[in-house]
Amino acid sequence: MNAVDKFASLLTLTREPFPASTKSAIVGSRPDLRVPVRDVALTNGECVSLYDTSGPYTDASVDIDVRRGLPDVRGKWIAERGDTERYEGRIRAALDDGVKHEERMSDKEGERIAQLRAEASALQRTPRRVRSGANVTQMHYARRGIVTPEMEYVALRENGKREWMAEYLDNDERARRVAGNPMGARIPQIITPEFVRDEVARGRAIIPANINHPEVEPMAIGRNFRVKINANIGNSAVTSSIEEEVEKLVWAIRWGADNVMDLSTGKNIHTTRDWIVRNSPVPIGTVPIYQALEKVGGVAEDLTWAIYRDTLIEQAEQGVDYFTIHAGLRLPFIHLTANRMTGIVSRGGSIMAKWCIAHHKESFLYTHFEDICDIMKAYDVSFSLGDGLRPGSGADANDEAQFAELRTLGELTQVAWKHDVQTMIEGPGHVPMHLIQANMDEQLKTCHEAPFYTLGPLTIDIAPGYDHIASAIGAAMIGWAGTAMLCYVTPKEHLGLPDRDDVKQGIIAYKIAAHAADVAKGHPGARSRDDALSKARFEFRWQDQFNLGLDPDTARDFHDETLPKDASKTAHFCSMCGPKFCSMKITQEVREYAAAKGLAEDAALVEGMQGKSAEFKAGGGEFYIPIRSET
Amino acid sequence: MNAVDKFASLLTLTREPFPASTKSAIVGSRPDLRVPVRDVALTNGECVSLYDTSGPYTDASVDIDVRRGLPDVRGKWIAERGDTERYEGRIRAALDDGVKHEERMSDKEGERIAQLRAEASALQRTPRRVRSGANVTQMHYARRGIVTPEMEYVALRENGKREWMAEYLDNDERARRVAGNPMGARIPQIITPEFVRDEVARGRAIIPANINHPEVEPMAIGRNFRVKINANIGNSAVTSSIEEEVEKLVWAIRWGADNVMDLSTGKNIHTTRDWIVRNSPVPIGTVPIYQALEKVGGVAEDLTWAIYRDTLIEQAEQGVDYFTIHAGLRLPFIHLTANRMTGIVSRGGSIMAKWCIAHHKESFLYTHFEDICDIMKAYDVSFSLGDGLRPGSGADANDEAQFAELRTLGELTQVAWKHDVQTMIEGPGHVPMHLIQANMDEQLKTCHEAPFYTLGPLTIDIAPGYDHIASAIGAAMIGWAGTAMLCYVTPKEHLGLPDRDDVKQGIIAYKIAAHAADVAKGHPGARSRDDALSKARFEFRWQDQFNLGLDPDTARDFHDETLPKDASKTAHFCSMCGPKFCSMKITQEVREYAAAKGLAEDAALVEGMQGKSAEFKAGGGEFYIPIRSET
Repeated sequence: MNAVDKFASLLTLTREPFPASTKSAIVGSRPDLRVPVRDVALTNGECVSLYDTSGPYTDASVDIDVRRGLPDVRGKWIAERGDTERYEGRIRAALDDGVKHEERMSDKEGERIAQLRAEASALQRTPRRVRSGANVTQMHYARRGIVTPEMEYVALRENGKREWMAEYLDNDERARRVAGNPMGARIPQIITPEFVRDEVARGRAIIPANINHPEVEPMAIGRNFRVKINANIGNSAVTSSIEEEVEKLVWAIRWGADNVMDLSTGKNIHTTRDWIVRNSPVPIGTVPIYQALEKVGGVAEDLTWAIYRDTLIEQAEQGVDYFTIHAGLRLPFIHLTANRMTGIVSRGGSIMAKWCIAHHKESFLYTHFEDICDIMKAYDVSFSLGDGLRPGSGADANDEAQFAELRTLGELTQVAWKHDVQTMIEGPGHVPMHLIQANMDEQLKTCHEAPFYTLGPLTIDIAPGYDHIASAIGAAMIGWAGTAMLCYVTPKEHLGLPDRDDVKQGIIAYKIAAHAADVAKGHPGARSRDDALSKARFEFRWQDQFNLGLDPDTARDFHDETLPKDASKTAHFCSMCGPKFCSMKITQEVREYAAAKGLAEDAALVEGMQGKSAEFKAGGGEFYIPIRSET
Repeated sequence: MNAVDKFASLLTLTREPFPASTKSAIVGSRPDLRVPVRDVALTNGECVSLYDTSGPYTDASVDIDVRRGLPDVRGKWIAERGDTERYEGRIRAALDDGVKHEERMSDKEGERIAQLRAEASALQRTPRRVRSGANVTQMHYARRGIVTPEMEYVALRENGKREWMAEYLDNDERARRVAGNPMGARIPQIITPEFVRDEVARGRAIIPANINHPEVEPMAIGRNFRVKINANIGNSAVTSSIEEEVEKLVWAIRWGADNVMDLSTGKNIHTTRDWIVRNSPVPIGTVPIYQALEKVGGVAEDLTWAIYRDTLIEQAEQGVDYFTIHAGLRLPFIHLTANRMTGIVSRGGSIMAKWCIAHHKESFLYTHFEDICDIMKAYDVSFSLGDGLRPGSGADANDEAQFAELRTLGELTQVAWKHDVQTMIEGPGHVPMHLIQANMDEQLKTCHEAPFYTLGPLTIDIAPGYDHIASAIGAAMIGWAGTAMLCYVTPKEHLGLPDRDDVKQGIIAYKIAAHAADVAKGHPGARSRDDALSKARFEFRWQDQFNLGLDPDTARDFHDETLPKDASKTAHFCSMCGPKFCSMKITQEVREYAAAKGLAEDAALVEGMQGKSAEFKAGGGEFYIPIRSET
């Protein structure tokens, strides 16, 4: 089944709750501040509560209709602040969905699209914007000492429910031994709303939350919070339809995407975005130059500041939460790519390079940067300052082109902060393991601790078809080093458009990387989930082992392949060693014995073992043990 | 299709050569020293030559018959040394295939097995052993200053053909910028046979090569050589047949397994091994305690030194190249596991722990260690000193149980070296990222630089179904830190027996980890393959990009999903961005332009760009560019 067929077969949204899971809420200081978590009921009566990105879709009690959009989470909070106003908004232009597509459309296609647009327009709310003289960014509030509901939401969300963790945290020897190495991060045991405010004020974290995206469940991106991941979706000229885009979003957040970027480049780019934003509980990012380019028929030299500016406003009114803007790719840097192995590999970067060369002018994104800030702060759109000169191969890693641009992003960060605009910095790309730390160091140094948001990085170039793995290695390492958000890479990277399964594979690989980073940093809420799963594994609670994993379905399917019966799900063995050996069982013997004897000292134990030895032989010495096949 | 059906459908060996690849040989100082490499012909006329583990199976000119076994590679070298003799060997015992299975066999099953055994016995060569008073280990020769053909073979194999790399190595700026960080390794630009001898003499590398495995293509495991990977195969009580085992071996080495461990625990364990060894061009490792346990009907307490010793000799005569021996799991360490989250997770370790507790005696593997050395040196079987107390969860990482055993392995290494027996040390397991370096440091310190051979490690515990990824992260990091061989983990880890596809997934993930480590260490022969692939990518040579990858088939299939036509394989775009944008193309423009102008300085270039700008506009400024979809 190819990608087109696969998507075509998905006519409904994926809404089943995760196995043994129920959605619950942590309620904050006001009744309308309800932070979702996923509670997993274990077979031993315990409960493990997990951070949840899936929004109302996994809540069976919520009635979802993509044609209505999601319930409003933040609308009241925004209105209460009294610094915004509703207004008519920009008039929808014929070109918004791209100039060429209009010309080429068949009658039948045209009818279908008209219908979708009508439905999308019905979804579109009357936009808000800042009142004259005000500034509505979370950073602006933070700097004035205001703790917003969004900040409190983030604090509660980062902490999650902690009660269930107690049993895993009460072992002092273990706590000391596996204590993380935060690599410069300072993660408090409990995140307070005030801590969130302070981090946002310093620019060390952002809360991407456009005032026109009231459906968003607020989250933070910053090195003193959990490491987040981003998944890219988007249509293209060849495949995809609008309905499929919403399902891709739902699918991506189901598996754990904290943010989603809509990288559509083809048809119906405006309409697609309406649908995505109105149905997204996670922040949505875009690369506005893609749409601007559609408006000028794909001819980069024809781009103008006016068209770009109009596109920013268009998307800000729709509710996009952050914009990738390649304003650091300056004219004088372009020639630095001349001797690269793989030149410029960022699409946005190449568009701007083309424009700069054609006009021999400095990039209008750079020259108009303060104008852009004015738009960002009117809607609280965050900057994701793009790395148009990121390396496209290990050979080009950490070169002067890359770092010259990075330094410029650092300068622009300070300009953005002058306007209280929230800002994160994009990073590579393709970087061998031994050059990863230097990327983080350079970013921290030149970008004043603004959150780093990297694509991988891929540690090698010879794994087409498996670049989710080649890059998960780099992502885990740079996440540990301090990167706040990891942009996923799918198995199709460099080869084609990811389909549904590729998206899932990419997300799971990146959840692994992000969690590995949290564990290594010593995030106080991270390791307990590992412990709960390990304990379930040790106690042969198979269902719990599956359900606590990142992908319960796959774990269960794999187990079913050799031991499909229900009885096997409580059996004290698995197919790796069969029913005869189990290393876990011997430990239970050791433990029971040690407990009975009070453990005390070696000597006492050794003596005791002589008794044990006799007892064993008397009982026939046969017991059944299993677990791993390797050595 | 479940695992059983999948294997049943494989009646023939996988023998197709890799796409665009031919097998060739580097000929050494004697005509019978021919080191295989895989030469990949690129569409631009260039050739890239790769390290090759697949043996004669991918050589279309070799006639393979698993019932005859592989051609002899080293027989003459062994005989020439004059320090071995042929002898009748141990008499095949009824129990060799396990006591219980014999009793339970049906008549039909019995007939089939009798047939297979007869064929296997026909394969079995008359064994060799050391002549009285001699020592036939590669370490023994090395310490006496003798460079064996095996050492020369390894040197040529590690270097490979270097001519093709020249073009990727002649850029000084790049060479300096991406130069590796060897983390204490000392890898020379060119490996000489004398260097190999010296490393083996110091114990810093081993060449697993039993004198009864003349079919083996010699390879080295050591931190100053390429990082190697091991794949585990083996039958179990539930699934698998002997024919399938050989195909699993062929499949594993096709994708790059440098070593294979036969971890069979079920029926026909002796017979299975005959077939595997006689048909394996890579070193074969085993855990002899598994078979010994079969001989005592699965009752660990009934194990004796006599039965174990007989098993070692049995397997040494068959040609097993290294034995995992858990001699470091001593009685006084067992109670250290009492408070662990997951106790003892090594199967071999748990068997010995059970024996020690039942008898309340020190492990016979420890008390008879010098007797074991006597057997090892009579056949040149290498030690893989097992980590029976490795952590089975992140919570148990780096604890006293683990390190007490590791220190004991260091003591035993010195005993083994006293006998000139080649030795490597097994390592964990489950280790969060921030505790990985300490494992390497501790191993280097306590085990005197004997090669480290780790299982992963898995960096988190919450990824059942994806543990190949969770562990590839740890494997890459510990490989960079100095681990010489990485034991793979498949997606089925903790859940069930890996099938054919799982084996491949595990191997590719580990080839990625090993290569990422080689690149980070700055192995002089590693990065050129990345460069060749990146160049192909940049120049839109799609076929070359596929064929230089770790898995050409999957890369091609992924590309075909959206752009199946042959013409797309030379197209200057891919489906990610479609035919309209390509960042690669703009770089070619920049490069051509810079070249024409001589590049010189910024100023000159900037001036030139004004001209370029005009030229662009005159030509309509439209050109077609593509490559990555992310931002």
